[in-house]
Amino acid sequence: MRTNEPIAVVGVSGYTGFELAKLLLRHPAGSAATFFMRDTQGAHCLSELFPQLRGIGRAALRTLSVENISATGAKTAFLATPHEVSAELAPKLLEAGLKVIDLSGAFRFRDAAVFQSWYKLPASHAAWLDSAVYGLPEFYANELASAQLVANPGCYATSVILALRPLADAGLLDSSSQVIADCKSGATGAGKELRKDLHFSELDENFKAYNLFAHRHTPEILDHTGLPESQLTFSTHLLPIARGILSTIYVTLAEPQSPDAIEALFRKTYAGRPMVRIWKAGTLPEIQHVAHTNFADLGFVLDRSGRRLIVVSCLDNLGKGAAGQAVQNFNHLLKLEETTGLQ
Amino acid sequence: MRTNEPIAVVGVSGYTGFELAKLLLRHPAGSAATFFMRDTQGAHCLSELFPQLRGIGRAALRTLSVENISATGAKTAFLATPHEVSAELAPKLLEAGLKVIDLSGAFRFRDAAVFQSWYKLPASHAAWLDSAVYGLPEFYANELASAQLVANPGCYATSVILALRPLADAGLLDSSSQVIADCKSGATGAGKELRKDLHFSELDENFKAYNLFAHRHTPEILDHTGLPESQLTFSTHLLPIARGILSTIYVTLAEPQSPDAIEALFRKTYAGRPMVRIWKAGTLPEIQHVAHTNFADLGFVLDRSGRRLIVVSCLDNLGKGAAGQAVQNFNHLLKLEETTGLQ
Amino acid sequence: MRTNEPIAVVGVSGYTGFELAKLLLRHPAGSAATFFMRDTQGAHCLSELFPQLRGIGRAALRTLSVENISATGAKTAFLATPHEVSAELAPKLLEAGLKVIDLSGAFRFRDAAVFQSWYKLPASHAAWLDSAVYGLPEFYANELASAQLVANPGCYATSVILALRPLADAGLLDSSSQVIADCKSGATGAGKELRKDLHFSELDENFKAYNLFAHRHTPEILDHTGLPESQLTFSTHLLPIARGILSTIYVTLAEPQSPDAIEALFRKTYAGRPMVRIWKAGTLPEIQHVAHTNFADLGFVLDRSGRRLIVVSCLDNLGKGAAGQAVQNFNHLLKLEETTGLQ
Amino acid sequence: MRTNEPIAVVGVSGYTGFELAKLLLRHPAGSAATFFMRDTQGAHCLSELFPQLRGIGRAALRTLSVENISATGAKTAFLATPHEVSAELAPKLLEAGLKVIDLSGAFRFRDAAVFQSWYKLPASHAAWLDSAVYGLPEFYANELASAQLVANPGCYATSVILALRPLADAGLLDSSSQVIADCKSGATGAGKELRKDLHFSELDENFKAYNLFAHRHTPEILDHTGLPESQLTFSTHLLPIARGILSTIYVTLAEPQSPDAIEALFRKTYAGRPMVRIWKAGTLPEIQHVAHTNFADLGFVLDRSGRRLIVVSCLDNLGKGAAGQAVQNFNHLLKLEETTGLQ
Repeated sequence: MRTNEPIAVVGVSGYTGFELAKLLLRHPAGSAATFFMRDTQGAHCLSELFPQLRGIGRAALRTLSVENISATGAKTAFLATPHEVSAELAPKLLEAGLKVIDLSGAFRFRDAAVFQSWYKLPASHAAWLDSAVYGLPEFYANELASAQLVANPGCYATSVILALRPLADAGLLDSSSQVIADCKSGATGAGKELRKDLHFSELDENFKAYNLFAHRHTPEILDHTGLPESQLTFSTHLLPIARGILSTIYVTLAEPQSPDAIEALFRKTYAGRPMVRIWKAGTLPEIQHVAHTNFADLGFVLDRSGRRLIVVSCLDNLGKGAAGQAVQNFNHLLKLEETTGLQ
Repeated sequence: MRTNEPIAVVGVSGYTGFELAKLLLRHPAGSAATFFMRDTQGAHCLSELFPQLRGIGRAALRTLSVENISATGAKTAFLATPHEVSAELAPKLLEAGLKVIDLSGAFRFRDAAVFQSWYKLPASHAAWLDSAVYGLPEFYANELASAQLVANPGCYATSVILALRPLADAGLLDSSSQVIADCKSGATGAGKELRKDLHFSELDENFKAYNLFAHRHTPEILDHTGLPESQLTFSTHLLPIARGILSTIYVTLAEPQSPDAIEALFRKTYAGRPMVRIWKAGTLPEIQHVAHTNFADLGFVLDRSGRRLIVVSCLDNLGKGAAGQAVQNFNHLLKLEETTGLQ
Repeated sequence: MRTNEPIAVVGVSGYTGFELAKLLLRHPAGSAATFFMRDTQGAHCLSELFPQLRGIGRAALRTLSVENISATGAKTAFLATPHEVSAELAPKLLEAGLKVIDLSGAFRFRDAAVFQSWYKLPASHAAWLDSAVYGLPEFYANELASAQLVANPGCYATSVILALRPLADAGLLDSSSQVIADCKSGATGAGKELRKDLHFSELDENFKAYNLFAHRHTPEILDHTGLPESQLTFSTHLLPIARGILSTIYVTLAEPQSPDAIEALFRKTYAGRPMVRIWKAGTLPEIQHVAHTNFADLGFVLDRSGRRLIVVSCLDNLGKGAAGQAVQNFNHLLKLEETTGLQ
Repeated sequence: MRTNEPIAVVGVSGYTGFELAKLLLRHPAGSAATFFMRDTQGAHCLSELFPQLRGIGRAALRTLSVENISATGAKTAFLATPHEVSAELAPKLLEAGLKVIDLSGAFRFRDAAVFQSWYKLPASHAAWLDSAVYGLPEFYANELASAQLVANPGCYATSVILALRPLADAGLLDSSSQVIADCKSGATGAGKELRKDLHFSELDENFKAYNLFAHRHTPEILDHTGLPESQLTFSTHLLPIARGILSTIYVTLAEPQSPDAIEALFRKTYAGRPMVRIWKAGTLPEIQHVAHTNFADLGFVLDRSGRRLIVVSCLDNLGKGAAGQAVQNFNHLLKLEETTGLQ
């Protein structure tokens, strides 16, 4: 355990970065964290800008630059920055020898073409795509142990992959049937940028679908479940709440199964993985069960035919869907207990 | 137009009945309405019990009994009562010659066995099931013109049938693919009864799926779309808002279609039907567009293959999903303009 | 009744203007309304820009200019525009002979200095301040009958004046005690402009005080209650709801009173004023009782000493607090029933 | 530090008890906690009844009885039980030598008559009222060090006393002017019991005042600020959010003060008290700054005269207003750092 090793945290002005700051300030390694922003407004500690952080922990604040990061002696950097900022900044830090946990989408695909196609950005950072480890510790713990660059997964993607991967790996999915992932997220998942549809009076008492057949988390789900694009319909909706994702996932099984068999499959897959919790067959998690935690909860209902399966997957988009998962990945890099600072 | 003909309205204590009262008090025929409750607490007008109704209109209140209803000379009765109360009360009023618009599920199926299976109630009222007209005026206007008994549809059922029926009637659905209707409703749809999961602190910032493979609106949808039970997966979720349903409906088409063709089909089906509004291909209605109205809005997105279609169907569960639709049916019985009192 | 007389409505992009549009489209005089925006984006009717208005009524849309307004032959114009736009536009329309109902704060004070001090704007329109009638019909119905320019009151101001004016006029207030008006408003009262504190994730599950000792509605309240500035403490808070204001108003009475006497005073003041509803002594209105209506509801509790009085005043900030009240004023100008189009 | 000493926690079914359970399971002393309920439904650990607690910590569950509590060897008991249960159970545990932290109102007053008058319960437990320490550690840390019985304060009372006590102790309050405490609370403060006004559809988009001149927290505020009943007007409102209290407190000062002097007074009073945070003069805390924490935040605005002061006091009703404060008191009893398990 090397919890006094300096770490750098870039970007705290968004919801993900702020949640990450709160988690790290409570983490044993957090006392050695320095936070970086483009414009610190003259402040030298986080609580000058965010009075609600007073009394939680030390939090030095510096102006963002590769030099300032290097000056801290940081061995690990978290990037809670937009895709284009991460794509530019991460390679510089990696070349300087730091480990990087990137919370943006910039390093989530090996194929640069996918990045260009879905993110409409040039893949100037393509040289690093190959070495990035997809930071879903439940499936890539071995790779994380020696990773230099961790691509922290998307919130929706985490929710859907955790539900589908065990079924796909076990070969239970009927290959001629659509898999439908109908996902609903709270508003912090859409970020802090001012936008008309995120104005309080627009979202309050409202609910809407968006980005149908066009959401950027699609290729992540395909990559890590092995589904062909033509078999997955992934849709996203905006809930009038701040935090939480609930995904309702419709699957047709190749052969009839019993509820016990499905439950056993989920339990076996996630044995020894404390951040994924399996609910008893026929019982379903709700967003309230995971909000403000790092847990992902899975429940399901099977119809009488044993072939129509609905899986309900819940997590907190800022927890297991972003900042919490980043800390979980950090724990893997540091060989700490996976749940350190997350309970 | 016979808008001064006496009418009786039974049950105003629930959300549907209360909404119905508010609509009728603003309706040209509403001044001749008498309201009935089991226990009037000594009050003689609605606004004594509900001070927020003061200043809206006259609203005589009487204790519920067949005799008291008869005494008003009412020719039409609305029943905003629980299934079992409607099943018992409606036959008596029908035998006395009244027209009845029943907002419960008691008369929504011709097959008494369906009623017993899904509602767990004896079909003592079976003799009347055959003559009930399913009150979805967009498809059954002709039958409504001469109906004595109208079974007002379920809120979810209205939302799903309006989206699927045009596609089914046109023979566009691929018969070997599942139709998935993932529906989300505001809390008034669950009624006013005190229930743990409807307690404010339980639903606030929460979202959950419920009654998977087991919702009572299933047989209505099957009956009025013609889908076999094995082809429809209908799921329901509870939104932390008061009013509104958004259904996301996933369909595989037998042959590739163009967005224009789908839009044209919807427009043609609902031409001359002012309460259903079709959105342009690729644009989607939201709950805010229909809340506090009697409109049902339909939008859709078609994927590039032209075979995967997502229809988004929105309505207000208390409007087009219940009380508003009841008034729309009432307008048909009275040969009034369909939209009377609804705009 | 001249309900087919052309009217002009300027500004529909904000919450107040949009609510006004919805009210007018349901009003008997609304079919003769033309709507004006700075940038119509090429649309010729409102429902092209706002699809949720389809099916409600005709609504011609034109580019805003004095010439275009004149071309409609409008005799009356509503201005749902920012203060500075109203200050510039209203004089031109008034000089052209139109009647103007202005929903901004630009004409709410006779004293130009007050305008400059609270709104930080030059009073270039000072010549018209004297002739403006403060559009609170419960107190200024006579003046409205012959008004050319109506200054529609502020939402908070309406809520507080309706509660305090009867007590002040009756001389019941103890002059040596503070009057405290602790007011709470839904978010539409703060407008549609994108602002960090109105971002959904910032206001959801939040509540805050703002503009203490500095809210622009202060001078309106002073003017129309006769209180000296030193005796009134007026505070405002932002509620995580869309619509509604509840003001809790603390008053010390000069002499002990009975609950009956206070109730009688309120009833007498508002006799024949259908938009203000008085609750029985000891019972209190809530925001749900007035949301989506044009009613202002007043209730109160008196302590055992008979000298400490708490008045609770509720209204919908978009209804009686803005657009509804503008229509009520319009009805007065047209000598229509005051409640026309508002129930 | 004796963090492995057994403790007993009675009552986890309500919001306060459940929050207490979550806090204790994260507390160093929590691994030695046994939880007690009247009806354990056959479960032996908390997570059987509350699946969302799985993965957080050990939590043995037993049927409530004095014998079962004794059998654990517990030296300290938390009672998150209704007043009448606490009044009966606490004396038995105290006589058996346990220390008791009671979260109900049963032991908050020395004067049995006050208890009877406000809680309408016989003071059968009157013998213990004298020895109870009011558990507001910021003012009673010395008494807590040797307390056997701690009466955990009411949520509203904590919020108001923390704001007023420094001003009262410093003699700044004008004795001839009313102190108005206008308080607003989230719904968990009203408990988990099913009640019509706490039904989701009733409170959503609503806001209301309640219990004016009649709230049970009144005598606590009077006792611990020294104000006479005739000088305090304390009002309570229900916010459509789950957690948080914001109190807006209006005070007239005997002599004009500067903002700096007021800020200095608050800072001096709470120096070395990490759970109370003082905001800079003219800046105000909001509920979002304290929700899900144990902090109480105080901010204020002074008018130009220097005599009218508005203090805004925020806390989480389940945190510093209940369960968090109970843990803070527990830390005092155990001579632990006051903030242990609370950050």
